[in-house]
Amino acid sequence: MNIVLLSGGSGKRLWPLSNDTRSKQFIKIFKTTDGVYESMVQRVYRQIRSVDDRADVTIATSKSQVSAIHNQLGADVGISVEPCRRDTFPAIALAAAYLNDVRGISEEEAVVICPVDPYVEQDYFEALRELGRHAGVSEANLVLMGIEPTYPSAKYGYIIPTSKDHISKVAVFKEKPTEEKAQEYIAKGALWNGGVFAFRLGYVLQRAHELIEFTGYRDLYDKYDSLTKISFDYAVVEHEQNIEVMRFAGMWKDIGTWNTLTEAMESDSIGKAILNDHCDNVHVVNELNVPVLCMGLKDVVVSASPEGILVSDKNQSSYIKPYVDAIDQQIMFAEKSWGSFQVIDIEENSMTIKVTLNAGHGMNYHSHEHRDEVWTVISGHGRTIVDGVERKVVVGDVIQMPAGVPHTIMADTKLQVIEVQIGPDISVHDKKKTVLPNTAQQK
Amino acid sequence: MNIVLLSGGSGKRLWPLSNDTRSKQFIKIFKTTDGVYESMVQRVYRQIRSVDDRADVTIATSKSQVSAIHNQLGADVGISVEPCRRDTFPAIALAAAYLNDVRGISEEEAVVICPVDPYVEQDYFEALRELGRHAGVSEANLVLMGIEPTYPSAKYGYIIPTSKDHISKVAVFKEKPTEEKAQEYIAKGALWNGGVFAFRLGYVLQRAHELIEFTGYRDLYDKYDSLTKISFDYAVVEHEQNIEVMRFAGMWKDIGTWNTLTEAMESDSIGKAILNDHCDNVHVVNELNVPVLCMGLKDVVVSASPEGILVSDKNQSSYIKPYVDAIDQQIMFAEKSWGSFQVIDIEENSMTIKVTLNAGHGMNYHSHEHRDEVWTVISGHGRTIVDGVERKVVVGDVIQMPAGVPHTIMADTKLQVIEVQIGPDISVHDKKKTVLPNTAQQK
Repeated sequence: MNIVLLSGGSGKRLWPLSNDTRSKQFIKIFKTTDGVYESMVQRVYRQIRSVDDRADVTIATSKSQVSAIHNQLGADVGISVEPCRRDTFPAIALAAAYLNDVRGISEEEAVVICPVDPYVEQDYFEALRELGRHAGVSEANLVLMGIEPTYPSAKYGYIIPTSKDHISKVAVFKEKPTEEKAQEYIAKGALWNGGVFAFRLGYVLQRAHELIEFTGYRDLYDKYDSLTKISFDYAVVEHEQNIEVMRFAGMWKDIGTWNTLTEAMESDSIGKAILNDHCDNVHVVNELNVPVLCMGLKDVVVSASPEGILVSDKNQSSYIKPYVDAIDQQIMFAEKSWGSFQVIDIEENSMTIKVTLNAGHGMNYHSHEHRDEVWTVISGHGRTIVDGVERKVVVGDVIQMPAGVPHTIMADTKLQVIEVQIGPDISVHDKKKTVLPNTAQQK
Repeated sequence: MNIVLLSGGSGKRLWPLSNDTRSKQFIKIFKTTDGVYESMVQRVYRQIRSVDDRADVTIATSKSQVSAIHNQLGADVGISVEPCRRDTFPAIALAAAYLNDVRGISEEEAVVICPVDPYVEQDYFEALRELGRHAGVSEANLVLMGIEPTYPSAKYGYIIPTSKDHISKVAVFKEKPTEEKAQEYIAKGALWNGGVFAFRLGYVLQRAHELIEFTGYRDLYDKYDSLTKISFDYAVVEHEQNIEVMRFAGMWKDIGTWNTLTEAMESDSIGKAILNDHCDNVHVVNELNVPVLCMGLKDVVVSASPEGILVSDKNQSSYIKPYVDAIDQQIMFAEKSWGSFQVIDIEENSMTIKVTLNAGHGMNYHSHEHRDEVWTVISGHGRTIVDGVERKVVVGDVIQMPAGVPHTIMADTKLQVIEVQIGPDISVHDKKKTVLPNTAQQK
């Protein structure tokens, strides 16, 4: 199976776990049978592999997510990097060109497109494999997966098929109807549109060439920022008469809000939490190192991270976005290509950060104009280059970098440092990349 | 007016703001007209001073609170230090001996005893002044203040007077009755016992000498740990026939739980907090540097500090103690005689702390057997002594102290350092005080 997972943008609706730099699909919130936690993207990737261990998985995403994807899924996963966000049609066109030109997948082969974050079981991916197989042999140009509705939701789009057969032609699409209308559609056999579909690669490449002038993957990549933002639905699906839908009756959840996310949690809390007996339908996700004590609450979700603390009625939690948009907050935590950082203290003229470097990774060689920095190594070992001079560093070593002096640190093992930044108006923008001198080698 | 404020022990009922090292009376939670926040002890002290600027105020408390009291009230306040906790009779006897022997107050003068944490207005302290004046001239040995009940509470003790006059003899005391009984008592003119009373100093000294063999303040102080734990009520009040009570009809609140504390808050939040329109009777006290977002909550208190996060139904919050007792948590924040510290990061073999020294203060000269330490000065200036060598330190300076090497830091201005501790099994017990060499001088 060739499968492209669409990995969307920053999700503020799961704040404080998600933020501008950490999208919801990377939050480790699902407990596996081994007792470790995995993220949505890890869960989906594991499920695909267990259904089809030879599946060719490509993740279509923005540049900003590449590090997180490699950190969570390893170096082998295929990534179609969108230079900027241009909605789903350009993203799928780019992924199609990538599969054809870079991965060498033929135009006759079927490709399945699926969001990266459905909360489902194995049967879902078995259905996707069937979807792909069918798309490879069907007369139809597009084969959608339709999910059997469990209630008349007004939140989803509906696919109305011409029959209630397992696979049938699509009669019409209906966007988010009222609950009454939804009830009507469901009586006629309507299905939820989960944004999952399959096609032969050549079909989408053809559509892409009709709508965008490009020679191949590299060309499309280079002109990507000039493309119009348009969804795959508007650009392709609405103009296509020859569409089929395949029914899927298994478990499917769209985990976009705290309410739906907590429904998928195995236990009532993740992290340090105490819930007294008078709590009813309360969930806690706590990423901090101190306890959360909940007493006498009902239908409440509590989440704490270095970014902030949410305490919300579960139904209210779906209205979170404008409140989070209004928070003007220093980013307190981020995953980077080389590891991660967490802000642990902010004062008027200083900031203290815990930096974790993954083994074999290093920062860019860089300097700051307005601030001094001090590293104290608290775990692991590696090497620093400061002003062109390389030295080995181990736990307990202290490295001082006055303003203007270029520096980097490279981890031989996983390595952690406490970085104290000192100066006026500390800002992420005060950073100048520098070329490493020949005598020193950056890994 | 001579007034002794009894400052009680560590209160876990206002966790996470109060903990083993920070009692509730020191939490800065009340907004003054100047817009600054003051603690219960600061509020009471300010109110006493504004009613009687020559009042002789003594705080009876344990050793562990002395630094916090001096930090919050200045160096001038009188403190009767209890070497250990022995309940209210020994504490009042010690304070009486202190007033007589150390402060030179004559046995004829009246002394008012009052808890340090009532939430009241100025009229309360005007009543205390009247109480003291009356005790100085009355035939009675003890004059209590009785608070006019506002509802038939089952939480308080009741004083039943012989009449409804402003001052009358006490007929009988009733401990925490049922609400029905309380209703009955109130109909007869009963008053709440807020633990406030006045007497001529000689009276209590005489009672003390009858029950404890001691020569004077110093002797009583030295044998304090051998005294029996007994309350002033059991030891004195119950055996005294000649008691009067003075009625007080003003505002009085006992701020012992989150529920009553939030009633006394001027606004719905202290610290970074966002409450959406669907919140009703929600209060937030947030000491962290990140926002708390509350959505759709009712009758809930949220409090966040470096110790943890409480989210509680307001009524449930009075049952907090056993849950907090069960939390086995590293102390994350403490006020000390020299300033304060806050733990900002904990890893397996390291701990990072922000240390704030008040101007003119220094640590003890000490060393650690098992851990190295690194200081980075982030604000202010002062001096360090490391292995006997003194040097001046300013912002940006880094001081390294390997295990075994004695060290101290003294603040010339308010001074902050980030302290990184590195070693196995980091513990507060790994600390050895050392005598300073003659060549170096500790301020």
